[in-house]
Amino acid sequence: MREVFQAELKSIGDELIQMSKLVAEAMERAYASFEAADTDIAQEVIAADQKIDYLQTSLDERAIDILALQGPVASDLRMIVGSLRMSASLERMGDLARHIAQLTRLRFPNNVAPQRLAETFKEMASLDVQIAQKVTELLESRDLNIASEIIGLNNRVDELHASVFKVVADPDWNESAPATADSTLTSRYLERYADHGVSVARKVTYLVTGEWDPEIGVRGQL
Amino acid sequence: MREVFQAELKSIGDELIQMSKLVAEAMERAYASFEAADTDIAQEVIAADQKIDYLQTSLDERAIDILALQGPVASDLRMIVGSLRMSASLERMGDLARHIAQLTRLRFPNNVAPQRLAETFKEMASLDVQIAQKVTELLESRDLNIASEIIGLNNRVDELHASVFKVVADPDWNESAPATADSTLTSRYLERYADHGVSVARKVTYLVTGEWDPEIGVRGQL
Repeated sequence: MREVFQAELKSIGDELIQMSKLVAEAMERAYASFEAADTDIAQEVIAADQKIDYLQTSLDERAIDILALQGPVASDLRMIVGSLRMSASLERMGDLARHIAQLTRLRFPNNVAPQRLAETFKEMASLDVQIAQKVTELLESRDLNIASEIIGLNNRVDELHASVFKVVADPDWNESAPATADSTLTSRYLERYADHGVSVARKVTYLVTGEWDPEIGVRGQL
Repeated sequence: MREVFQAELKSIGDELIQMSKLVAEAMERAYASFEAADTDIAQEVIAADQKIDYLQTSLDERAIDILALQGPVASDLRMIVGSLRMSASLERMGDLARHIAQLTRLRFPNNVAPQRLAETFKEMASLDVQIAQKVTELLESRDLNIASEIIGLNNRVDELHASVFKVVADPDWNESAPATADSTLTSRYLERYADHGVSVARKVTYLVTGEWDPEIGVRGQL
Protein backbone atom coordinates (compact mmCIF):
# COMPACT_ATOMS: atom_id res chain seq x y z
CA MET A 1 0.00 0.00 0.00
CA ARG A 2 2.81 2.34 0.94
CA GLU A 3 4.53 1.65 -2.38
CA VAL A 4 1.37 2.42 -4.31
CA PHE A 5 1.08 5.62 -2.34
CA GLN A 6 4.64 6.68 -3.13
CA ALA A 7 4.06 5.89 -6.79
CA GLU A 8 0.93 8.05 -6.75
CA LEU A 9 2.79 10.93 -5.14
CA LYS A 10 5.50 10.60 -7.74
CA SER A 11 2.91 10.71 -10.54
CA ILE A 12 1.64 14.01 -9.20
CA GLY A 13 5.18 15.39 -9.14
CA ASP A 14 5.76 14.15 -12.69
CA GLU A 15 2.58 15.81 -13.92
CA LEU A 16 3.59 19.11 -12.37
CA ILE A 17 6.96 18.84 -14.14
CA GLN A 18 5.23 18.05 -17.41
CA MET A 19 2.90 21.04 -16.99
CA SER A 20 5.83 23.36 -16.26
CA LYS A 21 7.58 22.18 -19.45
CA LEU A 22 4.46 22.77 -21.49
CA VAL A 23 3.89 26.28 -20.12
CA ALA A 24 7.53 27.20 -20.83
CA GLU A 25 7.07 26.01 -24.39
CA ALA A 26 3.71 27.80 -24.63
CA MET A 27 5.27 31.15 -23.73
CA GLU A 28 8.27 30.58 -25.99
CA ARG A 29 5.96 29.84 -28.93
CA ALA A 30 3.47 32.55 -28.01
CA TYR A 31 6.23 35.13 -28.06
CA ALA A 32 7.56 33.76 -31.37
CA SER A 33 4.09 34.23 -32.86
CA PHE A 34 3.81 37.69 -31.31
CA GLU A 35 7.22 38.85 -32.59
CA ALA A 36 6.67 37.58 -36.13
CA ALA A 37 2.90 38.22 -36.32
CA ASP A 38 2.61 34.55 -37.21
CA THR A 39 -0.95 33.29 -36.83
CA ASP A 40 -0.03 29.67 -37.54
CA ILE A 41 2.16 29.53 -34.46
CA ALA A 42 -0.43 31.51 -32.51
CA GLN A 43 -3.06 28.97 -33.46
CA GLU A 44 -0.84 26.12 -32.30
CA VAL A 45 -0.33 27.78 -28.91
CA ILE A 46 -4.06 28.30 -28.51
CA ALA A 47 -4.79 24.66 -29.40
CA ALA A 48 -1.98 23.32 -27.19
CA ASP A 49 -3.42 25.08 -24.14
CA GLN A 50 -6.08 22.37 -23.98
CA LYS A 51 -3.39 19.84 -23.20
CA ILE A 52 -2.28 21.92 -20.22
CA ASP A 53 -5.86 22.21 -19.02
CA TYR A 54 -6.28 18.47 -19.39
CA LEU A 55 -3.15 17.80 -17.36
CA GLN A 56 -4.43 20.02 -14.57
CA THR A 57 -7.68 18.10 -14.47
CA SER A 58 -5.87 14.80 -14.48
CA LEU A 59 -3.53 15.90 -11.69
CA ASP A 60 -6.38 17.25 -9.60
CA GLU A 61 -8.39 14.08 -9.98
CA ARG A 62 -5.40 12.01 -8.93
CA ALA A 63 -4.89 14.25 -5.90
CA ILE A 64 -8.53 13.86 -4.84
CA ASP A 65 -8.28 10.10 -5.24
CA ILE A 66 -5.19 9.97 -3.06
CA LEU A 67 -6.87 12.10 -0.41
CA ALA A 68 -9.91 9.82 -0.45
CA LEU A 69 -8.17 6.45 -0.60
CA GLN A 70 -4.95 6.99 1.32
CA GLY A 71 -5.88 9.59 3.92
CA PRO A 72 -2.41 11.13 3.87
CA VAL A 73 -1.28 13.27 6.80
CA ALA A 74 1.53 15.67 7.67
CA SER A 75 3.99 16.48 4.90
CA ASP A 76 2.34 14.16 2.37
CA LEU A 77 -0.97 15.90 2.88
CA ARG A 78 0.63 19.32 2.48
CA MET A 79 2.40 18.15 -0.65
CA ILE A 80 -0.88 17.07 -2.21
CA VAL A 81 -2.75 20.23 -1.29
CA GLY A 82 0.28 22.26 -2.43
CA SER A 83 0.14 20.41 -5.75
CA LEU A 84 -3.45 21.52 -6.25
CA ARG A 85 -2.28 25.10 -5.80
CA MET A 86 0.71 24.64 -8.09
CA SER A 87 -1.35 23.05 -10.82
CA ALA A 88 -3.72 26.03 -10.68
CA SER A 89 -0.78 28.45 -11.09
CA LEU A 90 0.68 26.47 -13.98
CA GLU A 91 -2.67 26.24 -15.71
CA ARG A 92 -2.99 30.01 -15.42
CA MET A 93 0.48 30.47 -16.94
CA GLY A 94 -0.75 28.47 -19.93
CA ASP A 95 -3.79 30.77 -20.19
CA LEU A 96 -1.58 33.87 -20.16
CA ALA A 97 0.64 32.48 -22.94
CA ARG A 98 -2.57 31.78 -24.85
CA HIS A 99 -3.70 35.40 -24.34
CA ILE A 100 -0.47 36.60 -25.98
CA ALA A 101 -1.17 34.29 -28.94
CA GLN A 102 -4.77 35.52 -29.11
CA LEU A 103 -3.64 39.16 -29.25
CA THR A 104 -1.29 38.20 -32.09
CA ARG A 105 -4.16 36.65 -34.01
CA LEU A 106 -6.45 39.58 -33.30
CA ARG A 107 -4.01 42.15 -34.74
CA PHE A 108 -2.77 40.13 -37.71
CA PRO A 109 -1.37 41.15 -40.22
CA ASN A 110 -0.04 43.91 -37.96
CA ASN A 111 2.28 43.43 -35.04
CA VAL A 112 0.71 43.84 -31.62
CA ALA A 113 3.63 45.73 -30.14
CA PRO A 114 4.94 49.06 -31.37
CA GLN A 115 8.59 48.89 -32.36
CA ARG A 116 9.53 51.02 -29.40
CA LEU A 117 8.45 48.33 -26.93
CA ALA A 118 9.65 45.34 -28.94
CA GLU A 119 12.88 44.92 -26.99
CA THR A 120 11.10 45.27 -23.64
CA PHE A 121 8.55 42.60 -24.48
CA LYS A 122 11.28 40.38 -25.91
CA GLU A 123 13.16 40.55 -22.62
CA MET A 124 10.01 40.03 -20.53
CA ALA A 125 9.02 36.97 -22.57
CA SER A 126 12.55 35.60 -22.35
CA LEU A 127 12.51 36.05 -18.56
CA ASP A 128 9.11 34.36 -18.40
CA VAL A 129 10.43 31.35 -20.30
CA GLN A 130 13.49 31.19 -18.05
CA ILE A 131 11.23 31.35 -15.00
CA ALA A 132 9.12 28.45 -16.24
CA GLN A 133 12.24 26.45 -17.10
CA LYS A 134 13.61 27.09 -13.63
CA VAL A 135 10.28 26.00 -12.15
CA THR A 136 10.81 22.68 -13.93
CA GLU A 137 14.34 22.42 -12.49
CA LEU A 138 13.07 23.35 -9.04
CA LEU A 139 10.32 20.72 -9.15
CA GLU A 140 12.87 18.14 -10.27
CA SER A 141 15.65 18.99 -7.82
CA ARG A 142 13.98 20.81 -4.89
CA ASP A 143 17.14 22.96 -4.87
CA LEU A 144 15.99 26.15 -3.17
CA ASN A 145 18.73 28.23 -4.80
CA ILE A 146 16.62 27.93 -7.92
CA ALA A 147 13.65 29.42 -6.07
CA SER A 148 15.78 32.47 -5.27
CA GLU A 149 16.81 32.76 -8.90
CA ILE A 150 13.17 32.70 -9.95
CA ILE A 151 12.39 35.54 -7.56
CA GLY A 152 15.33 37.52 -8.96
CA LEU A 153 14.09 37.02 -12.53
CA ASN A 154 10.61 38.10 -11.50
CA ASN A 155 11.97 41.32 -9.98
CA ARG A 156 13.40 42.17 -13.38
CA VAL A 157 10.04 41.41 -15.02
CA ASP A 158 8.38 43.81 -12.57
CA GLU A 159 10.89 46.53 -13.46
CA LEU A 160 10.23 46.06 -17.15
CA HIS A 161 6.47 46.09 -16.55
CA ALA A 162 6.82 49.42 -14.72
CA SER A 163 9.02 50.74 -17.54
CA VAL A 164 6.26 50.12 -20.08
CA PHE A 165 4.05 52.64 -18.27
CA LYS A 166 6.91 55.15 -18.24
CA VAL A 167 7.37 54.74 -22.00
CA VAL A 168 3.64 55.15 -22.60
CA ALA A 169 3.62 58.33 -20.46
CA ASP A 170 6.56 59.81 -22.39
CA PRO A 171 5.59 62.84 -24.51
CA ASP A 172 7.36 61.16 -27.45
CA TRP A 173 4.95 58.22 -27.37
CA ASN A 174 2.78 58.75 -30.42
CA GLU A 175 1.22 55.38 -30.96
CA SER A 176 -2.48 54.88 -31.54
CA ALA A 177 -4.77 54.31 -28.57
CA PRO A 178 -5.42 50.65 -29.54
CA ALA A 179 -1.64 50.10 -29.67
CA THR A 180 -1.40 51.63 -26.20
CA ALA A 181 -4.17 49.37 -24.91
CA ASP A 182 -2.58 46.29 -26.51
CA SER A 183 0.82 47.15 -25.05
CA THR A 184 -0.75 47.54 -21.61
CA LEU A 185 -2.41 44.13 -21.82
CA THR A 186 0.71 42.46 -23.21
CA SER A 187 2.78 43.81 -20.35
CA ARG A 188 0.18 42.75 -17.81
CA TYR A 189 0.01 39.20 -19.20
CA LEU A 190 3.79 38.84 -19.21
CA GLU A 191 4.00 40.18 -15.67
CA ARG A 192 1.26 37.89 -14.31
CA TYR A 193 2.87 34.85 -15.91
CA ALA A 194 6.05 35.55 -13.94
CA ASP A 195 4.01 36.09 -10.73
CA HIS A 196 2.51 32.64 -11.05
CA GLY A 197 5.98 31.17 -11.53
CA VAL A 198 6.97 32.81 -8.25
CA SER A 199 3.88 31.34 -6.57
CA VAL A 200 5.00 27.86 -7.55
CA ALA A 201 8.54 28.58 -6.35
CA ARG A 202 7.27 29.76 -2.96
CA LYS A 203 5.05 26.73 -2.60
CA VAL A 204 7.96 24.38 -3.26
CA THR A 205 10.04 26.35 -0.77
CA TYR A 206 7.36 25.95 1.85
CA LEU A 207 7.02 22.24 1.19
CA VAL A 208 10.77 21.73 1.47
CA THR A 209 11.45 23.92 4.50
CA GLY A 210 8.11 23.92 6.29
CA GLU A 211 8.50 27.67 6.59
CA TRP A 212 6.88 30.38 4.65
CA ASP A 213 8.71 33.24 3.12
CA PRO A 214 8.30 36.29 5.39
CA GLU A 215 8.02 38.48 2.32
CA ILE A 216 4.62 37.06 1.54
CA GLY A 217 3.57 36.26 5.09
CA VAL A 218 1.31 33.36 5.83
CA ARG A 219 -0.29 33.32 2.44
CA GLY A 220 2.39 31.12 0.92
CA GLN A 221 1.85 28.34 3.33
CA LEU A 222 -0.27 25.96 1.34
CA MET B 1 -16.76 13.01 16.35
CA ARG B 2 -19.29 13.32 13.54
CA GLU B 3 -20.75 16.42 15.18
CA VAL B 4 -17.36 18.03 15.47
CA PHE B 5 -16.80 17.26 11.81
CA GLN B 6 -20.10 18.83 10.78
CA ALA B 7 -19.29 21.90 12.86
CA GLU B 8 -15.91 22.18 11.14
CA LEU B 9 -17.50 21.91 7.71
CA LYS B 10 -19.98 24.59 8.68
CA SER B 11 -17.14 26.86 9.80
CA ILE B 12 -15.56 26.58 6.38
CA GLY B 13 -18.87 27.48 4.76
CA ASP B 14 -19.26 30.43 7.10
CA GLU B 15 -15.79 31.71 6.30
CA LEU B 16 -16.48 31.54 2.57
CA ILE B 17 -19.65 33.56 3.13
CA GLN B 18 -17.75 36.09 5.20
CA MET B 19 -15.09 36.40 2.50
CA SER B 20 -17.72 36.92 -0.20
CA LYS B 21 -19.31 39.70 1.86
CA LEU B 22 -15.94 41.37 2.34
CA VAL B 23 -15.03 41.24 -1.35
CA ALA B 24 -18.43 42.70 -2.31
CA GLU B 25 -17.79 45.55 0.12
CA ALA B 26 -14.21 45.91 -1.15
CA MET B 27 -15.36 46.46 -4.73
CA GLU B 28 -18.18 48.75 -3.68
CA ARG B 29 -15.73 50.92 -1.72
CA ALA B 30 -12.98 50.65 -4.34
CA TYR B 31 -15.34 51.96 -6.97
CA ALA B 32 -16.52 54.76 -4.66
CA SER B 33 -12.88 55.82 -4.23
CA PHE B 34 -12.29 55.52 -7.97
CA GLU B 35 -15.35 57.58 -8.93
CA ALA B 36 -14.64 60.36 -6.43
CA ALA B 37 -10.82 60.26 -6.62
CA ASP B 38 -10.96 59.77 -2.84
CA THR B 39 -7.67 58.49 -1.46
CA ASP B 40 -9.01 58.03 2.07
CA ILE B 41 -11.49 55.43 0.90
CA ALA B 42 -8.84 53.94 -1.40
CA GLN B 43 -6.51 53.57 1.55
CA GLU B 44 -9.22 51.83 3.58
CA VAL B 45 -9.83 49.33 0.78
CA ILE B 46 -6.11 48.62 0.52
CA ALA B 47 -5.82 48.09 4.28
CA ALA B 48 -8.98 45.98 4.47
CA ASP B 49 -7.61 43.55 1.90
CA GLN B 50 -5.37 42.10 4.62
CA LYS B 51 -8.45 40.90 6.44
CA ILE B 52 -9.54 38.99 3.34
CA ASP B 53 -6.08 37.47 2.99
CA TYR B 54 -6.15 36.49 6.64
CA LEU B 55 -9.54 34.81 6.23
CA GLN B 56 -8.24 32.81 3.31
CA THR B 57 -5.30 31.59 5.38
CA SER B 58 -7.56 30.72 8.27
CA LEU B 59 -9.96 28.83 6.02
CA ASP B 60 -7.17 26.96 4.30
CA GLU B 61 -5.60 25.93 7.61
CA ARG B 62 -8.91 24.67 8.84
CA ALA B 63 -9.40 22.69 5.63
CA ILE B 64 -5.96 21.08 5.96
CA ASP B 65 -6.70 20.20 9.59
CA ILE B 66 -9.97 18.55 8.62
CA LEU B 67 -8.26 16.59 5.87
CA ALA B 68 -5.56 15.44 8.30
CA LEU B 69 -7.73 14.67 11.30
CA GLN B 70 -11.01 13.49 9.82
CA GLY B 71 -9.98 11.86 6.55
CA PRO B 72 -13.18 12.88 4.82
CA VAL B 73 -14.30 11.06 1.68
CA ALA B 74 -16.81 11.46 -1.15
CA SER B 75 -18.87 14.63 -1.14
CA ASP B 76 -17.32 15.97 2.09
CA LEU B 77 -13.86 15.65 0.59
CA ARG B 78 -14.95 17.40 -2.60
CA MET B 79 -16.56 20.15 -0.58
CA ILE B 80 -13.32 20.78 1.30
CA VAL B 81 -11.12 20.75 -1.79
CA GLY B 82 -13.70 22.92 -3.56
CA SER B 83 -13.53 25.36 -0.65
CA LEU B 84 -9.78 25.72 -1.15
CA ARG B 85 -10.46 26.67 -4.77
CA MET B 86 -13.28 29.04 -3.81
CA SER B 87 -11.20 30.79 -1.14
CA ALA B 88 -8.46 31.33 -3.75
CA SER B 89 -10.98 32.94 -6.13
CA LEU B 90 -12.43 35.15 -3.41
CA GLU B 91 -8.98 36.21 -2.25
CA ARG B 92 -8.18 37.19 -5.84
CA MET B 93 -11.39 39.23 -6.06
CA GLY B 94 -10.16 41.16 -3.01
CA ASP B 95 -6.83 41.78 -4.77
CA LEU B 96 -8.58 43.11 -7.86
CA ALA B 97 -10.69 45.53 -5.80
CA ARG B 98 -7.43 46.62 -4.15
CA HIS B 99 -5.87 47.22 -7.60
CA ILE B 100 -8.73 49.61 -8.44
CA ALA B 101 -8.07 51.48 -5.18
CA GLN B 102 -4.34 51.55 -5.92
CA LEU B 103 -4.93 53.08 -9.36
CA THR B 104 -7.10 55.71 -7.68
CA ARG B 105 -4.32 56.58 -5.27
CA LEU B 106 -1.72 56.61 -8.05
CA ARG B 107 -3.63 59.14 -10.17
CA PHE B 108 -4.86 61.39 -7.33
CA PRO B 109 -5.84 64.26 -7.53
CA ASN B 110 -6.97 63.30 -11.02
CA ASN B 111 -9.61 60.74 -11.83
CA VAL B 112 -8.35 57.47 -13.28
CA ALA B 113 -11.10 57.17 -15.85
CA PRO B 114 -11.80 59.62 -18.64
CA GLN B 115 -15.34 60.98 -18.48
CA ARG B 116 -16.25 59.09 -21.61
CA LEU B 117 -15.79 55.73 -19.88
CA ALA B 118 -17.19 56.74 -16.49
CA GLU B 119 -20.63 55.21 -17.11
CA THR B 120 -19.15 51.99 -18.46
CA PHE B 121 -16.93 51.49 -15.43
CA LYS B 122 -19.78 52.43 -13.11
CA GLU B 123 -21.93 49.71 -14.63
CA MET B 124 -19.10 47.15 -14.58
CA ALA B 125 -18.36 47.87 -10.92
CA SER B 126 -22.05 47.69 -10.05
CA LEU B 127 -22.32 44.31 -11.82
CA ASP B 128 -19.22 43.11 -9.97
CA VAL B 129 -20.75 44.04 -6.63
CA GLN B 130 -24.01 42.32 -7.58
CA ILE B 131 -22.06 39.22 -8.60
CA ALA B 132 -20.26 39.10 -5.25
CA GLN B 133 -23.53 39.64 -3.40
CA LYS B 134 -25.12 36.82 -5.35
CA VAL B 135 -22.13 34.63 -4.55
CA THR B 136 -22.96 35.21 -0.88
CA GLU B 137 -26.61 34.27 -1.48
CA LEU B 138 -25.55 31.22 -3.46
CA LEU B 139 -23.21 30.03 -0.71
CA GLU B 140 -25.96 30.54 1.84
CA SER B 141 -28.81 28.96 -0.09
CA ARG B 142 -27.20 26.61 -2.66
CA ASP B 143 -30.00 27.76 -4.97
CA LEU B 144 -28.59 27.12 -8.44
CA ASN B 145 -30.85 29.71 -10.05
CA ILE B 146 -28.52 32.22 -8.45
CA ALA B 147 -25.56 30.61 -10.21
CA SER B 148 -27.32 31.20 -13.54
CA GLU B 149 -27.94 34.80 -12.61
CA ILE B 150 -24.25 35.25 -11.83
CA ILE B 151 -23.32 33.90 -15.25
CA GLY B 152 -25.81 36.29 -16.86
CA LEU B 153 -24.32 39.26 -15.02
CA ASN B 154 -20.83 38.19 -16.06
CA ASN B 155 -21.88 38.06 -19.72
CA ARG B 156 -22.83 41.72 -19.44
CA VAL B 157 -19.47 42.52 -17.82
CA ASP B 158 -17.74 40.83 -20.76
CA GLU B 159 -19.75 42.91 -23.23
CA LEU B 160 -18.81 46.11 -21.42
CA HIS B 161 -15.16 45.05 -21.29
CA ALA B 162 -15.21 44.54 -25.07
CA SER B 163 -16.93 47.90 -25.51
CA VAL B 164 -14.03 49.66 -23.76
CA PHE B 165 -11.69 48.53 -26.54
CA LYS B 166 -14.16 49.76 -29.16
CA VAL B 167 -14.32 53.18 -27.48
CA VAL B 168 -10.53 53.37 -27.30
CA ALA B 169 -10.27 52.48 -31.00
CA ASP B 170 -12.79 55.17 -31.98
CA PRO B 171 -11.23 58.05 -33.94
CA ASP B 172 -12.92 60.46 -31.49
CA TRP B 173 -10.95 59.03 -28.57
CA ASN B 174 -8.44 61.76 -27.79
CA GLU B 175 -7.32 60.88 -24.28
CA SER B 176 -3.67 60.73 -23.27
CA ALA B 177 -1.78 57.46 -23.58
CA PRO B 178 -1.57 57.02 -19.77
CA ALA B 179 -5.35 57.47 -19.57
CA THR B 180 -5.71 54.81 -22.26
CA ALA B 181 -3.41 52.46 -20.34
CA ASP B 182 -5.26 53.11 -17.06
CA SER B 183 -8.62 52.52 -18.71
CA THR B 184 -7.35 49.25 -20.15
CA LEU B 185 -6.17 48.04 -16.74
CA THR B 186 -9.34 49.18 -14.99
CA SER B 187 -11.47 47.30 -17.46
CA ARG B 188 -9.31 44.20 -17.14
CA TYR B 189 -9.49 44.27 -13.32
CA LEU B 190 -13.27 44.67 -13.35
CA GLU B 191 -13.63 41.87 -15.88
CA ARG B 192 -11.37 39.45 -13.96
CA TYR B 193 -13.23 40.11 -10.72
CA ALA B 194 -16.45 38.94 -12.37
CA ASP B 195 -14.69 35.88 -13.82
CA HIS B 196 -13.65 34.78 -10.35
CA GLY B 197 -17.23 35.21 -9.15
CA VAL B 198 -18.30 32.86 -11.94
CA SER B 199 -15.61 30.37 -10.88
CA VAL B 200 -17.11 30.25 -7.41
CA ALA B 201 -20.62 29.86 -8.84
CA ARG B 202 -19.51 26.96 -11.02
CA LYS B 203 -17.78 25.29 -8.11
CA VAL B 204 -20.93 25.48 -5.98
CA THR B 205 -22.93 24.13 -8.90
CA TYR B 206 -20.58 21.19 -9.20
CA LEU B 207 -20.72 20.49 -5.49
CA VAL B 208 -24.51 20.57 -5.49
CA THR B 209 -25.16 18.60 -8.66
CA GLY B 210 -22.03 16.50 -8.99
CA GLU B 211 -21.91 17.57 -12.61
CA TRP B 212 -19.77 20.11 -14.29
CA ASP B 213 -21.07 22.74 -16.60
CA PRO B 214 -20.43 21.62 -20.20
CA GLU B 215 -19.62 25.21 -21.11
CA ILE B 216 -16.36 25.04 -19.23
CA GLY B 217 -15.71 21.32 -19.67
CA VAL B 218 -13.90 19.34 -17.07
CA ARG B 219 -12.04 22.29 -15.64
CA GLY B 220 -14.86 23.26 -13.32
CA GLN B 221 -14.94 19.99 -11.57
CA LEU B 222 -13.02 20.72 -8.42
